[in-house]
Order: sequence, then structure tokens, then C-alpha cells
Amino acid sequence: MPASGDRGGPVRRDAPIGVFDSGVGGLTVLKELRRQLPNESMLYLGDEARMPYGPRPAEEVRRFTREAMRWLSAREVKLIVLACNTATSVALEMVREEIPIPILGVVRPGAAAALAASSKRAIGVLATDGTVRSGAYVRALKDLDPFVDVRQQACPKLVPIVEAGEFAGPKARAAVEEYVGWMTRGPDGPLVDTLLLGCTHYPLLRPVIGDVVGPAVRVVDSATTTAFAVREVLVSHGMLAAPGRPEHRLFTTSDTATFRRVARTLFGEDLPAVEEVRLPEAA
Amino acid sequence: MPASGDRGGPVRRDAPIGVFDSGVGGLTVLKELRRQLPNESMLYLGDEARMPYGPRPAEEVRRFTREAMRWLSAREVKLIVLACNTATSVALEMVREEIPIPILGVVRPGAAAALAASSKRAIGVLATDGTVRSGAYVRALKDLDPFVDVRQQACPKLVPIVEAGEFAGPKARAAVEEYVGWMTRGPDGPLVDTLLLGCTHYPLLRPVIGDVVGPAVRVVDSATTTAFAVREVLVSHGMLAAPGRPEHRLFTTSDTATFRRVARTLFGEDLPAVEEVRLPEAA
Repeated sequence: MPASGDRGGPVRRDAPIGVFDSGVGGLTVLKELRRQLPNESMLYLGDEARMPYGPRPAEEVRRFTREAMRWLSAREVKLIVLACNTATSVALEMVREEIPIPILGVVRPGAAAALAASSKRAIGVLATDGTVRSGAYVRALKDLDPFVDVRQQACPKLVPIVEAGEFAGPKARAAVEEYVGWMTRGPDGPLVDTLLLGCTHYPLLRPVIGDVVGPAVRVVDSATTTAFAVREVLVSHGMLAAPGRPEHRLFTTSDTATFRRVARTLFGEDLPAVEEVRLPEAA
Repeated sequence: MPASGDRGGPVRRDAPIGVFDSGVGGLTVLKELRRQLPNESMLYLGDEARMPYGPRPAEEVRRFTREAMRWLSAREVKLIVLACNTATSVALEMVREEIPIPILGVVRPGAAAALAASSKRAIGVLATDGTVRSGAYVRALKDLDPFVDVRQQACPKLVPIVEAGEFAGPKARAAVEEYVGWMTRGPDGPLVDTLLLGCTHYPLLRPVIGDVVGPAVRVVDSATTTAFAVREVLVSHGMLAAPGRPEHRLFTTSDTATFRRVARTLFGEDLPAVEEVRLPEAA
């Protein structure tokens, strides 16, 4: 049986994988996808012009996500990775009903990664306002382990810091201290043994976060497990691309210096052209 | 770190496991729990007086579920298994926020069981109206495999048939034919290779369902994987009961003949007294 969306036609296995994020954060997922799936072509869309999504009302995030899914859908990708935690938290179910292409979010893989890493099952989640408000991580973690002890912290300063390219400066360190101090340095030791980076931007701050929390707290993100989940479903459905020369394309709604800088770190000399697009696309 | 609910105190590992269902269906989960966890004491609550839950508005199911969770919570169970798919689909998140005891639903374990059984990832879900309307199984299945092809069928006649004790009669066969015929006997063969019984009552009809769908379609339910998930979290948290003499108690809001009959099949000569209670409990 060829894989198909519920209302779509059969999908080509050599079609690219679409990856969407509000900005540069999803490039951390793209990197892991390239590592685990070297034959796959990928098409990345970052909504730089409208980031950050985190502080926006859910209704607005849904509208922007719908526009991005339609844009990717029109380019006939075989699978979309919704690499934005905020969008996954508030819009995944809606866009799955509207778009005939299979969509994989990052929340469930992230929750699974955190539980696998945590021996005490005491987990801190750093995320955007929107993701924290949605309760998506608490739900995903408790579905897997109802005894889990979850602490959430909204981190509104982090995405702007990352998008400004200030990955390692004193501003980044001060913000991380402010957000994680209470959960990793209580009077009786850390309240959590694992810190889940519940936003794809945060792995770019990993050196600073690791420094601040110290070696007693494990820091995990959803990039590795999301790529693993993508690999697993493609294998299950006989949808892995044939060995060949994969093509990668990067699209952004605003061609910023940070987008190029992060993309260059990821692609090195092979950096594909960064192409600028508009959302919503004219009908 | 002793396991604890987010707002509750430490939980005793020898406390019973609470199991709740709208009626007799959850006894199929209780049976599997007893098999996999022979040292655990269990306390079963069936809301026979107000079943079926399936056709009721979500708001009403939430209210009834809240009353049942409070009743079990007052009896200091260490974990609650919400063995009713309808209640899991529409009320799990709400009661988790209200009750300090960890609650495990049956939808996620059921979805995982269906995906593990299905080689073509084409799954039919039989469930109540309420569960189908909630989309909970579609969500859980697509979170695990976004390529999965899911067909749902609401089966309003089945719970009343089971609760009337007519597990094997012509009425049961006719209803099952009506519900599964279109998905298991298309002109090009079955549309699904796996049928998920998305209501804990339905396993009592398994012989009839197996007969109607034939050997080409696998029939799975959530009882085995739910019990496995319970075992797994109790082990992870050092919460398995010490070997000893487990105690089982059965409570129902209406002591029906079918309740006794199903309970007797399950417990044989060891049938505990069936105790009648009222919901909501007087404050």
C-alpha cells in the first residue's frame, strides 16, 4: 500500500522533507535530519519576518502556521516537520485536518527524549509563553509517565537573543540564570535532574545553558529524537529517498544576518542560496 | 526521590491501584492488570447507574469523571487507571489538573498497540460517539505515525449490548457486521489491516468481532498495553507493591446482573463482594 495522506494522492519517496520554524531555531532540527538521513532532500521555511511566535495569541500562531503549511504543501513535500514548538503546541491538530500531507511535531519526540534521559523523572521544561500556556509538554510527559514531576518556565527573552545572534554573550547568560536558577539550584539540590529545551531556538544556547546548570542536570532537546522519529516513519512506509544527490533549499520570509550565520554554521561551504518568500502566498 | 503527585504528598507503594470505567468494560483492563501485576491491590469503580457515557455531551462526561476521580482520590489509591475511553478522550486533561493522584488513560496505550500490530499502518478504530467526536485516537495515532491511515466508526449499539449481557447473540453479530463491514470487506480487500477496539467494553465482544472480520484483520485492544504501561511506571518509580496478599474491591453505582456476571468470569470463586456506592459522594 503506497503511503498517502488521508485526502491526498500517493506521495513520491524522492520528494523533499519540508521543515518549518518561526525562525532560525528549526535549523537545529534540519542539522540532525541531515545527519541521520543523508539521502533526503529538504526544504526549509523560516518565518523570520514574523518571529517570535512565542508571545503571540494562539489564534495568530494558528493562522501563520496554516499559511506556512499551505506554502510547503504547494511544493509537494512528502512529509512536514513542524519544528516550532509553539506551532506544534497550538496548531498541529488543526493543520493536520486541513493539509493532506503528513505532519510530525516536535513535542512528543521531545517529551520522550526527556523521559529517557531522566532517572528521577523530575523534568524542567524551558519553552515559549505560548507553549507553556498550551500545556502541551505537561500533557505529552504525563501521557508517557503520569508520575512525572514537571516544572515549566516560560523564557520570553531567549528567542530574541538567539535571533540577534547573541548566543554566548552576557545577556544570554543572565537570562538563562534568571530562568533556570530556581529549578536547578534549590536549598536541597536541584528540583529537576533533566532540563528539556522545549523550543528549537534554545539548542543554539546549549553551551551557556550547560555552563549555568552544571553537570548534575542533563540537558536534552527534541532535534535528535525528532529526526529519529522521521527516520522511523519513513522506513515503516518504504518512503526513504533512494541514494543520490539530495538537494537542500532554504527559504525565509526575511533574509536576516542571523539566518545566514546559523545556516552557514550548519552547511559550511555548501551553503545553499537563501531565498526570500512572502507569506501568505498570493492565491 | 519518592514519587508524588504535583500537589500531593508522598504516595504509599502498597496503596491500591484505582480503576474507573463507566460500566463493566474496565473489568477487561482489571483482568489484565491482575495478570501482569499479581501483588497489586485494586479498587474498581463502575458507574453502572449512568452508563453509557459514549452518547453524552462532553461536559457531562467531564462532570461524572470528576466525581469518580474524587471518590477514588478520597480512598488514597496510588495511581488511577482511567479505563473508559470516552472519559480519557474528553476529561483526562481536566481531571489531571484537579486531582493530585497520577492518572493514566487508555488512549495512548491503545494507539501504540494498534501501530505495533499493523504492518500496513492502516487502522480502523471502533469507539463510542464521544471518543470519535473528540478525535483523541486520530491524534494519538498521528502523533506516533503521521503517515498512518485511520478510519473511525462510532458504534453506539455495542455498549448497551454488552451491558445487557448479550455478548454472543444475533443482535451482537448484526451490529458488528453493520459497523465493520465497510472497512474490512471493500471491493479491493480490507481498507484496514488492524482493528482497534477503542472502548473497554468491546473486548467482551471479541469472539464475535473476530468471526466477522476474519483472519486477515488483526483485532487489538488497549487492556494489555495499558497494564504494561502501568507496570512500567510503577517499576520506574519504585512503586510496585511488596509481595503479599493483595486485596480487591469492586464498587458500582448500580449493582446489575451483568456487572456480577462479568466480574464472576474474571474472579471465579474469588469474587469479592460487589459494593454499591453513590456518585457524587455527599460532601
